[in-house]
Amino acid sequence: ATSRTSLCRAAVAWAPGKLSVEEVEVAPPKAGEVRIKIVATGICHTDDHGLKGSLPNVEFPVIPGHEGAGIVESIGGGVTTVKPGDKVIPLCLPQCGKCSFFYFAFPYTYKTSRFSCKGKQIHHFLWVSTFAEYTVVPEYAVAKIDAAAPLDKVCLFGCGFSTGYGAAINTAKVKPGSTCAVFGLGGVGLSVVMGCKAAGASRIIAVDINKDKFAKAKELGATDCINPRDFQKPIQEVLTEMTGQGVDYSFEAIGHADTMIAALASCNMSTGVCVMVGVLDSGSEISIDPTLLLIGRTWKGTALGGWKTRECIPKLVSGYLEKKFNSDLLITHTLPFAKVNEGFELLRAGKSIRTVLLF
Amino acid sequence: ATSRTSLCRAAVAWAPGKLSVEEVEVAPPKAGEVRIKIVATGICHTDDHGLKGSLPNVEFPVIPGHEGAGIVESIGGGVTTVKPGDKVIPLCLPQCGKCSFFYFAFPYTYKTSRFSCKGKQIHHFLWVSTFAEYTVVPEYAVAKIDAAAPLDKVCLFGCGFSTGYGAAINTAKVKPGSTCAVFGLGGVGLSVVMGCKAAGASRIIAVDINKDKFAKAKELGATDCINPRDFQKPIQEVLTEMTGQGVDYSFEAIGHADTMIAALASCNMSTGVCVMVGVLDSGSEISIDPTLLLIGRTWKGTALGGWKTRECIPKLVSGYLEKKFNSDLLITHTLPFAKVNEGFELLRAGKSIRTVLLF
Ligand SMILES: NC(=O)c1ccc[n+]([C@@H]2O[C@H](COP(=O)([O-])OP(=O)(O)OC[C@H]3O[C@@H](n4cnc5c(N)ncnc54)[C@H](O)[C@@H]3O)[C@@H](O)[C@H]2O)c1
Ligand SMILES: NC(=O)c1ccc[n+]([C@@H]2O[C@H](COP(=O)([O-])OP(=O)(O)OC[C@H]3O[C@@H](n4cnc5c(N)ncnc54)[C@H](O)[C@@H]3O)[C@@H](O)[C@H]2O)c1
Ligand SMILES: [Zn+2]
Ligand SMILES: [Zn+2]
Repeated sequence: ATSRTSLCRAAVAWAPGKLSVEEVEVAPPKAGEVRIKIVATGICHTDDHGLKGSLPNVEFPVIPGHEGAGIVESIGGGVTTVKPGDKVIPLCLPQCGKCSFFYFAFPYTYKTSRFSCKGKQIHHFLWVSTFAEYTVVPEYAVAKIDAAAPLDKVCLFGCGFSTGYGAAINTAKVKPGSTCAVFGLGGVGLSVVMGCKAAGASRIIAVDINKDKFAKAKELGATDCINPRDFQKPIQEVLTEMTGQGVDYSFEAIGHADTMIAALASCNMSTGVCVMVGVLDSGSEISIDPTLLLIGRTWKGTALGGWKTRECIPKLVSGYLEKKFNSDLLITHTLPFAKVNEGFELLRAGKSIRTVLLF
Repeated sequence: ATSRTSLCRAAVAWAPGKLSVEEVEVAPPKAGEVRIKIVATGICHTDDHGLKGSLPNVEFPVIPGHEGAGIVESIGGGVTTVKPGDKVIPLCLPQCGKCSFFYFAFPYTYKTSRFSCKGKQIHHFLWVSTFAEYTVVPEYAVAKIDAAAPLDKVCLFGCGFSTGYGAAINTAKVKPGSTCAVFGLGGVGLSVVMGCKAAGASRIIAVDINKDKFAKAKELGATDCINPRDFQKPIQEVLTEMTGQGVDYSFEAIGHADTMIAALASCNMSTGVCVMVGVLDSGSEISIDPTLLLIGRTWKGTALGGWKTRECIPKLVSGYLEKKFNSDLLITHTLPFAKVNEGFELLRAGKSIRTVLLF
């Protein structure tokens, strides 16, 4: 029925650093693909990385955005798990289901696309490209969610909330009564705080250089908030003194090499676990003293919080509907899609936690 | 009763790189200390690191050695857990028992010593200094073992065997049916192979640049043995091709930054666990691409295989007596103590796995 090309608005980055709202053509889904009408999309710091050209495997021109929610508009041949009208979250880290792994990790993006603009094909971003009113993604990159879900809220489950919450619950497996440190209090870091609290941590130390983030961190469960700029000594020493031997779990949700190392050194040397959540610019390296790890520390990464995305994102949405957690507190701004650049300005200025764009 | 200074043989490194057998004075144990007559000691690669001056917190002159077994000769005031005549293994990573941690990790060494030679005080090494016929260690650095244990064999439980076996069992927690890669087939790496096998790994890929190590590796449980020098491409690519997605668990038991990175890259990017066992020269750094960790890999270190040493080393010795594992296969040479330098030559030339020195 709906086999025609859609004409719609999308934010196109023709080259690194510049995002402009354009009219784009979105071809119908091919076999195994799903065309989604995006209703709402958050802006995540990873979009800014992509926009700057500092993620691997992102080619320009590209339509960024990966924290969206929408409604299936049409499906290609052979698609069986979703149908037009279903509420869905496109998965920026798809779950394969065939192999033993959680997801297709690399390349970072769907290698084809149904987007074109001004006669040029526009590339996909992280499999989903949610900064477009219509996007076409492979069936395995779509999670069907509860029909009652408010799309302008649960779009955060496409990335930020799921990532941070899962980093605490799945990746670190925070234990009740433990002590945690969370570096970076953006949408991701604050979701880590929520995950630590849900896991029963008794002390959650929030770390940011922007003290304006502290009130929200406390509201979400942080017991202490510290600003590295208030201390002469390195923040890992401050945390070690505050806790005796270092925290049980530390999380880096910023994306800088120096804070990655500080987070690693902040957890105790025998049994501490440090989770790397932040994304560094493509090509950067982290240089560590191996004795940081030798005595028994664990250092690990997390992608989308370690969820099996197709199975688990719908369950997280159900948990939200059951009021198990209130991710709405992360949404500080809601803007019409045309103001996408304003949303990025708020993020870069540290004035927003999450801005949700509405089509 | 035995409150006199002992005069005995010990191997003293007066300066980095040089080890000479000397007559040393060993003062009686003070309160809380135990004087042990060392019967046998293995030579571990970490002794060579210490001898070269490339371990932190090792001061010269020093008596190295940390893989020993002996008999309590006398005890200082307040010592209650061992008595003269007990067979013991001195613990190069003591278990505190008071704090919540496994052991006193740093500094690497007992900050005092009862050793003197030619009028100079000689420093301790890794808490134990087993290259001495008599050594004085704090009570918390002594594990009492079964009176039936052959000291010339179970000395390996003081370091090499316990480290490698525990790296697989405790640190990685290798699961039955999994695939493992072990880099470096010295006494430590071959003990990792034994641990992987005991844990039920179905494939154990042994990696070494010295193919003379392969026969023993196969005898102990390796299913494949590969030499990185036989391939044009990096060994992590070879391992990824051999296994499809990378191994489940990788272990580095060499102590080089490049093999640490290769081991990390050899385990699968979603769920792989890499354990750093080898010790790098003091002050060296490892520089990694953070995307190696980001998708979900775990990187961790192990010290003495993660055992709670005072409790667990005696249990490992009992397991040996019950023939649960045959660590004797690691002993390729037995030499009189006077030939300690020959033992180091065999190690450096890659001709020995473990040399045991007998007093
Ligand atoms: N691993 C994943 O799957 C995944 C998913 C989403 C986002 N990310 C990454 O997580 C990171 C955070 O994303 P976000 O959307 O929350 O970003 P954000 O920009 O909203 O938040 C970053 C926070 O870090 C703080 N910060 C910056 N420098 C700091 C420093 N030196 N010390 C302490 N705090 C500092 C900022 O003030 C800000 O509050 C980004 O790197 C993003 O790319 C990773
Ligand atoms: N973490 C701990 O608690 C702990 C305890 C004991 C020993 N160690 C460390 O473990 C390491 C191994 O100790 P060991 O006594 O078995 O040493 P070893 O010298 O007997 O064995 C090292 C092996 O690595 C191989 N090797 C060297 N370079 C290689 C390369 N580029 N690729 C592949 N193989 C290579 C050698 O051929 C040799 O077989 C050392 O660094 C030692 O200091 C750590
Ligand atoms: Zn994101
Ligand atoms: Zn050793």
